[in-house]
Amino acid sequence: MHAVVKAIFFDVFGTIVDWRKGLTEGLGRGLARFGADIDIPALTGTWVDQIRQEQARAGTSSGSWKASCRTGLEAALRAHAGELPLTERDYETLVRAWERLPAWPDAVPGLRALRREYVIAPCCDAPVSTMTWLAKTAGLPWDIIIGPDITGTRLPDPEHYLASARLLALDPEQIMIVSAHNADLAVARASGFRTGFFSRPREHGPHQEADLAPAEAWDIVAFDLLDLARHLEAALY
Amino acid sequence: MHAVVKAIFFDVFGTIVDWRKGLTEGLGRGLARFGADIDIPALTGTWVDQIRQEQARAGTSSGSWKASCRTGLEAALRAHAGELPLTERDYETLVRAWERLPAWPDAVPGLRALRREYVIAPCCDAPVSTMTWLAKTAGLPWDIIIGPDITGTRLPDPEHYLASARLLALDPEQIMIVSAHNADLAVARASGFRTGFFSRPREHGPHQEADLAPAEAWDIVAFDLLDLARHLEAALY
Repeated sequence: MHAVVKAIFFDVFGTIVDWRKGLTEGLGRGLARFGADIDIPALTGTWVDQIRQEQARAGTSSGSWKASCRTGLEAALRAHAGELPLTERDYETLVRAWERLPAWPDAVPGLRALRREYVIAPCCDAPVSTMTWLAKTAGLPWDIIIGPDITGTRLPDPEHYLASARLLALDPEQIMIVSAHNADLAVARASGFRTGFFSRPREHGPHQEADLAPAEAWDIVAFDLLDLARHLEAALY
Repeated sequence: MHAVVKAIFFDVFGTIVDWRKGLTEGLGRGLARFGADIDIPALTGTWVDQIRQEQARAGTSSGSWKASCRTGLEAALRAHAGELPLTERDYETLVRAWERLPAWPDAVPGLRALRREYVIAPCCDAPVSTMTWLAKTAGLPWDIIIGPDITGTRLPDPEHYLASARLLALDPEQIMIVSAHNADLAVARASGFRTGFFSRPREHGPHQEADLAPAEAWDIVAFDLLDLARHLEAALY
């Protein structure tokens, strides 16, 4: 006997949008005037790693996120491009690349299909403002937007998911967490949430080794988001 | 020289949805088996007044809202219908009428038009969960949903608007508050927000006396939400 799933929370960077493509294009455009000898894909990878490290010790506000992005970019540029004469405005524009990432081809039709039956919401590391502009540009039809600046915490703290559930007055078993990252789903399952997985085998580029397959028997394992929507329909969740 | 408006926050009950019609129909259906001698429109009015009184001293959680609705309904029923043998489930169903209110005819096309240019969000007294289900049933295409359970306060505390602005990383002058209630706009203007008004002359029924006209020279005074969208376009806000 299953409790009925009422809402689905999504990881966004990797699961819904192709951050690597979007950031690489944004950095490529923004740094083009400094010549062609910067390895932009490597710079992008370092930037994302740096942000993750910054985030681990940063606050949960929108300002903290932007500061982490800025500091992480400075570090990545030092490593891959040396000293560049960037203005404040250049940095702002480059950081704003996070608000203009392309959705994977199945993401928007998948979300549209799921939205007819479920409340759908992003529940990831970036603040509400970033997720709002990203949703506008990528056409992500969220019902609500949740972020660390609402829950007061972030993953891997399970309270990030639990506070989000309280916001909808739902129990964990009425919510499915969907992510292309096994680690997110391990946190979710341990707190009683349903779990849905599909792999994004090119999220980290052509040589990706992590998250190519489910690490556990998640409630739904699908091929992509459209396939997950079909599974949900068939399973009568 | 105007700062550009990036987002519009809306009062919902009265401004976007016809609470009186929806609640009257919900109560009528839910209480039909107790006979036809309950004055449902009067009961509805008393219920809403009671909720407002309860809310003034209640917390900001989703549970507090539902408790206020429940307590207010008991008081209104005592006044208009005497003791009725209602079950817990009856009360739950009746309180859920707040999640199924019809939009005014201009509201959904008006929001759709505005959503192309601005971030649009409800910013009123009900919690995120109630506003989420209401948006689903009434087809309100919000970008994000803000409620007292996110801001930790409610109107007339201006912090309700200010915390909502911080969530979008915007300044008050980049946000317009739209309401059919002059009192909301007085709070908004005092904190530096732009203000938009139109009257809902039947919100409180055929004998309404309040909020039939703007109490001040608000930044935009329109006929309805579609008209407000046209004004915004013309004003280059």
